[in-house]
Formats: sequence, structure tokens, C-alpha cells
Amino acid sequence: MGFVKAVGADSSASSGDESLRELLQARYRQEQAPGEIRANAVLETILSHRTVRAYLQRPLAVGALETIVAAAQSAPSSSNLQAWSVVAVEDRARRERLSVFAGAQSHIVEAPLFLVWLADLSRLRVIADAEGRTANGLDYLESFLVAVVDAALAAQNAVVAAESLGLGSCYIGAIRNRPEEVAAELDLPPETIAVFGLTLGYPDPERPADVKPRLSQPVVLHRERYDRAQPAEEALDRYNRALRDFQAEQKLAPADWTDQASARIATTEALKGRHLLNETLRTLGFALK
Amino acid sequence: MGFVKAVGADSSASSGDESLRELLQARYRQEQAPGEIRANAVLETILSHRTVRAYLQRPLAVGALETIVAAAQSAPSSSNLQAWSVVAVEDRARRERLSVFAGAQSHIVEAPLFLVWLADLSRLRVIADAEGRTANGLDYLESFLVAVVDAALAAQNAVVAAESLGLGSCYIGAIRNRPEEVAAELDLPPETIAVFGLTLGYPDPERPADVKPRLSQPVVLHRERYDRAQPAEEALDRYNRALRDFQAEQKLAPADWTDQASARIATTEALKGRHLLNETLRTLGFALK
Repeated sequence: MGFVKAVGADSSASSGDESLRELLQARYRQEQAPGEIRANAVLETILSHRTVRAYLQRPLAVGALETIVAAAQSAPSSSNLQAWSVVAVEDRARRERLSVFAGAQSHIVEAPLFLVWLADLSRLRVIADAEGRTANGLDYLESFLVAVVDAALAAQNAVVAAESLGLGSCYIGAIRNRPEEVAAELDLPPETIAVFGLTLGYPDPERPADVKPRLSQPVVLHRERYDRAQPAEEALDRYNRALRDFQAEQKLAPADWTDQASARIATTEALKGRHLLNETLRTLGFALK
Repeated sequence: MGFVKAVGADSSASSGDESLRELLQARYRQEQAPGEIRANAVLETILSHRTVRAYLQRPLAVGALETIVAAAQSAPSSSNLQAWSVVAVEDRARRERLSVFAGAQSHIVEAPLFLVWLADLSRLRVIADAEGRTANGLDYLESFLVAVVDAALAAQNAVVAAESLGLGSCYIGAIRNRPEEVAAELDLPPETIAVFGLTLGYPDPERPADVKPRLSQPVVLHRERYDRAQPAEEALDRYNRALRDFQAEQKLAPADWTDQASARIATTEALKGRHLLNETLRTLGFALK
């Protein structure tokens, strides 16, 4: 196996440019030129990601979880500190209890596997103690941030690996609605917190999801310096229309993105308990200096 | 193109089990059974990830950056808020200035492209203003966390997509050493911060990197509840040995992981300026309630 193998090079799949053009069209619902790039299996998997909330009652293949976690561990880690852990919850009663703490999302119970991703500074504290060293660096917001980023990079590798195995997934940010109860349920040590959950399972083909369109690229991709002309009104208008088309196809209630997004951040109440995160982290042992 | 295509199914590559067994062996430097899972192009790319710090002086293919950003935008986003941006820096003089702010890491200058990933709440503030709504939800640590996680999920998709195109990368956490100077250089609006950088380019085959081993799986993967018997001393000893073998092969100074990791978090000084993150975020406009 070659180093950083260009998997597109030996692909016998459909003509690259056209295939990539279609993938980009589905993601943006507008023309985006593929340039010299050809589609490959990795790009196909990543670009056709969709959130799966409807699952078959079928357990994962033997070895799938371990392979997915190996993918997660293959993600980069800041200074190789590996400041994250994951709790794999299969027990249905436990998933039912966790779903109550996480906005009663039924797919936490429906999916056969629920992964709870942890920002984990406790392991480093244990190691520092064993080495007879102080661990004063852990007491800063920076170290919490390192752990959160480590957990997120790992989890996203897991998502992509899972999709390559025919699985679907859905992140559960609502696991932060009641973090102390989650910590008690999972017997988390101090200086760990559930950053997000992830449902995993085989998608139910009877209830398919589609690719959700995203903001056009110039809104998020800046060249050399931040472009303060963004978000351009025209780009937002176009995105509102693209998302309404998606909503109509998925039989979802129609709403502009600018309306949905601004409502989601309008008030303290809209955070559904997560406005207490700062205090909760301290209760869970993080110093956050 | 099928939905969440199982790319392994139609792969004509080497015998799956043996290939996956080798990939897992390289990552853990110990036996890990692949179960029923076969390798596929996605798993091969993810599991053979390595950090690249030595690059060819060759620009990216036309369309590569845009494809990579499309991959980034295909990552999940909390409540679809898309609370991140990325600044693509090609200008060499700017990369030289940024490298000074980020621990003088020479690969920031050597690689042809430097991506600066932003936690970006400014866009949502602009949209709320345009909608005539308050944006009080942005004033909490929770919203900063959402933006950081969004940026990290996006960036990791970018890394995997880039590797599928034959590119290599290296995250630069040191971009947080002097965030205010980075913000000035990139003309960042309030409520944005560079969370990490990412060098991108074609790896120099004359100076190859290898797969870095990780902690054995039981240390990070917990079943049903957090296993407080971890990190087991035996697992740490074995990992120290695996990392020393890697260091010897890469002609790096030998050191135990438990020594390196505990040194990295021992003191405030070891954070290299990042202990000020809390105050800096407030200076950059984040409320962090």
C-alpha cells in the first residue's frame, strides 16, 4: 500500500469530472467546477454525507466498532496528547435513559449503537500523578479546547469510516443539555465531559435522508484575509432558496435558513440548558482558567 | 451513485482482511483482529494517515482547494449553524509572518498552502442583526464550543479528502500562541478566532513520515460505562515501547509518551502563551458566559 495513496488514480469508476461535478452540485445546489480533480471513493463518501435518523434494527458487523475506533484514533491529536475517550453504549435501557437527557431524540434508542465522545483530561491527570509531576497546564481553557478538538477530529474520522462500511450516523449535541446526569450514567471521572453523542447503524432504506445543501463556498472560504463583504445578501438569499427546496423534498416544514439560524441563537432559552456549560464544566472538575 | 456506498464491496484491491490487519498493526503495533470488516479505499486513507512536515515546492492541482473545502462543508454542523470559516493563505510573505506567530514552524512556509480554521460566530451575529433579532445565545461558552466543534469536524473532512488527492497535512495548534496578532494579520471580525492552522501540500518522498502508533484501544474505547481501570499500567508500558520504536525509525530523540505527555501539561509555561486563551477570547469579542 502506497503512502497517502491517491485512490482516484486507479479508480475504474465513472468519469471523474462528471461524477465530482454531480457531487458538488448536490452539496451546493449550484454549479461548482471540479477543476483538474477527479472523484474517488473517499471524495464520494465524504461529499455524499447525509444525517441519518432512521435505522434498521440490525447490529453492526463484527469488528465494525473496533475498525471505526481505529479510524478515530488515526486522526491527528494535539501534541499526541490523545485527550479524548469514547463510551460505546449498546444496552437499550441505558440508551433510553441517555435519550431522556438529550432532548428525547428517538434515534438514540432506534440506532443499535450510541457513541458518547468525551473531552478527557482525566487520563492525563492520572499519568502526571504517576510520573510525580504537576499537571497545572490542565487547569486552563486551552486544555479543555485541546480535548474538545481532539474528540471532534476523532469522531469525524469515525463518521467517514462508518459511512464507508454502509453505516449512517447523527451527531447529538443535545448530550450537553444535562451533562451532569450523563456523567453519572456513564460513571465519568472528573475532568471528563460528554462533548457530543453519535448514533450509528444501518440506514433504513424506506426512510432515506438526502444531502443537505450548504452555504455557497465564498461565504466560508476566504482568500488571504477574511472577506468582510461576506455573508453577501445574494448568497444568503440563494441559500435560503436551496434549503427550501431541500425541505420540500424531505417533507419538512419550510423555513429560511437565516430565520432558523437566527432563532437558534436569539435567546438564552434557545440553548436548551446549555447556557450553563461554563458552570457545569467547573462542577465536573475543569478549572477553565 | 448509491446512498452511503459501501466502497469495500466492489473493491478489487488486495484481500480485505489481510490488508485491514496490516493497517491496524501499523496503527497499534500490536495485533488487532479485523473481524468481518474488509479494507476499502476510505479505511486505507484514514488508517494510514501520517503527519507531513516536509513538502515539495509544487502548488496544488487546480480545483483541489475548492474540492477540499466542499468536503469540509459536507461535515455535519450543529443545528446547521455552520459556525466556522477558513482562510486560505498562499502568499508566502503572509505565511512567513503567520509562522512567526505560530512557534516558527518551518513547514508553514514550506507547504504551498496554509489553511487557518476559524471558530466564527460573527456571521451569525450579522445574520441576527439583519433579521432584527437578538443574538444573546452567542454570548455563552456553549456557542464558542459549537463553533470550535464545527470547525474541527470540517477540518478533519478536509484532511481526509486532501489525503485522497495525494496531499499531506499538519495541524498547527500553535496558531493559538498569539491569536490577536493572527486576527490582525487576517483582518478577522469580532467573535472569530483561529482555532488551528493546517499546512497542505504534496509530501516530499525524500523525507517521508510514518504512521504514528496510538494508545491501545481499551485505553480510549469504553464499553457501556467509563472503565476506571484505564489507563492500565501495562497498556502505558506497551505504548511507551511502541512509541520508542517509532522514534528510533524516524530518528527522533527517544522519550516515553508518559514522560512527553506529562511534561506538555506540567506547567503554565508549557502552554506557550495559550494559558491566556480565556482573556484573549474576550478581547476578540467572545462573551463566554
